[in-house]
Amino acid sequence: MLTKTKQGVLLLSGGLDSATVAAMALAEGWTLHGLSFDYGQKQRVELERAAELAEHFKLASHTVFQVNLGLFGQSSLTDAALDVPKGRSLEAIGSGIPTTYVPARNTVFLSLALALAESLELRHLFLGVNALDYSGYPDCRPDFIAAFERLANAATKAADGGQPYQVHAPLLHMTKAEIIETGLGLGLDYGLTRSCYEVGDDGRSCGGCDACKLRLAAFEEVGQVDPIPYR
Amino acid sequence: MLTKTKQGVLLLSGGLDSATVAAMALAEGWTLHGLSFDYGQKQRVELERAAELAEHFKLASHTVFQVNLGLFGQSSLTDAALDVPKGRSLEAIGSGIPTTYVPARNTVFLSLALALAESLELRHLFLGVNALDYSGYPDCRPDFIAAFERLANAATKAADGGQPYQVHAPLLHMTKAEIIETGLGLGLDYGLTRSCYEVGDDGRSCGGCDACKLRLAAFEEVGQVDPIPYR
Repeated sequence: MLTKTKQGVLLLSGGLDSATVAAMALAEGWTLHGLSFDYGQKQRVELERAAELAEHFKLASHTVFQVNLGLFGQSSLTDAALDVPKGRSLEAIGSGIPTTYVPARNTVFLSLALALAESLELRHLFLGVNALDYSGYPDCRPDFIAAFERLANAATKAADGGQPYQVHAPLLHMTKAEIIETGLGLGLDYGLTRSCYEVGDDGRSCGGCDACKLRLAAFEEVGQVDPIPYR
Repeated sequence: MLTKTKQGVLLLSGGLDSATVAAMALAEGWTLHGLSFDYGQKQRVELERAAELAEHFKLASHTVFQVNLGLFGQSSLTDAALDVPKGRSLEAIGSGIPTTYVPARNTVFLSLALALAESLELRHLFLGVNALDYSGYPDCRPDFIAAFERLANAATKAADGGQPYQVHAPLLHMTKAEIIETGLGLGLDYGLTRSCYEVGDDGRSCGGCDACKLRLAAFEEVGQVDPIPYR
């Protein structure tokens, strides 16, 4: 079977992590097809950031796929009736699964990336999950990535031979500070990204949600100023 | 964590297999939430059948979820430019992966079932895949089901304890004839189902596509007449 080498599908969220993965993979000579999701997130600015990043990185293609996980509820990222937690300490952020968790989100996203990759005859998936400075989500851990890779190779034409699927999660064991240092070293402009769960209409990040807290602490750790505006 | 016993999410396609799984699970006292997909299939009658079956079985709920896999193309089930194969022998149907394969379809469907199940705090998924009389799809095989179950338990809150997810695929090792005999034994009216990839506007099945061929051969094997109309 034909498989294209050095080409893959990248989950592109508009945040800091997936932008860093893009910069890393492009620096290694990969050709990337970006895939972003309109999944019912309240935070619509993500999709604007993703589109701008896709253009900035000159990705081979960029698809925004509609998959309304908001229909199932249960997450403060999609449900207007649930508030995003604010003002938590880094210790609190690192323990337990918060309301920002979207049930099975990365499983659904990687499944759709797999569908796109198989359609394009590509065998590489890239995503920016990270299991150190993260929000405790189960679908950001090494076990999950390994289990998905096994699944991909049982679920598709790859099960009958040819090159196996590989899931590339280069940030998995990096701290947020290491991620930012890596991106800065590659010349990535983090001003193009947003991490906040509640960016205001004026484009300013809140500074208090878990995503802002982790981001700000990491920029401080590397002795750099985060270039995006905060309220 | 609260988990509800004897409740699960059922992938309901409107076809013979998932209807039989519903009949089997309901006979065992399960409460089922049906999940069907508008995935860009040309064969829209599937969704009418699924809705009628959901009502017939008095499912606890029935969700039709939009996930347009047709956007990725590459399947004769979604792409108007690709013809569904017709008139193949049962031997030909059993060998190789035909154009009716939709890349990663069952991975995407099970991922969304997992999202719904986790939202509802249920830990059981039911689907009607079958690895004997089938069309050679990789995502209908025992390895795939086992890999998905492992993934589900790494991907969700179940990774942190509590009752693990179980994927129930009771038809996996049954022949199509055994499936039909089981359903008939439970009083299932197969007139409520459709299997054909090209049902006509008059509601008649084509009799020549792989799905019709497998269905008709199985009804013949059990000495019964398929109650649905054919052209």
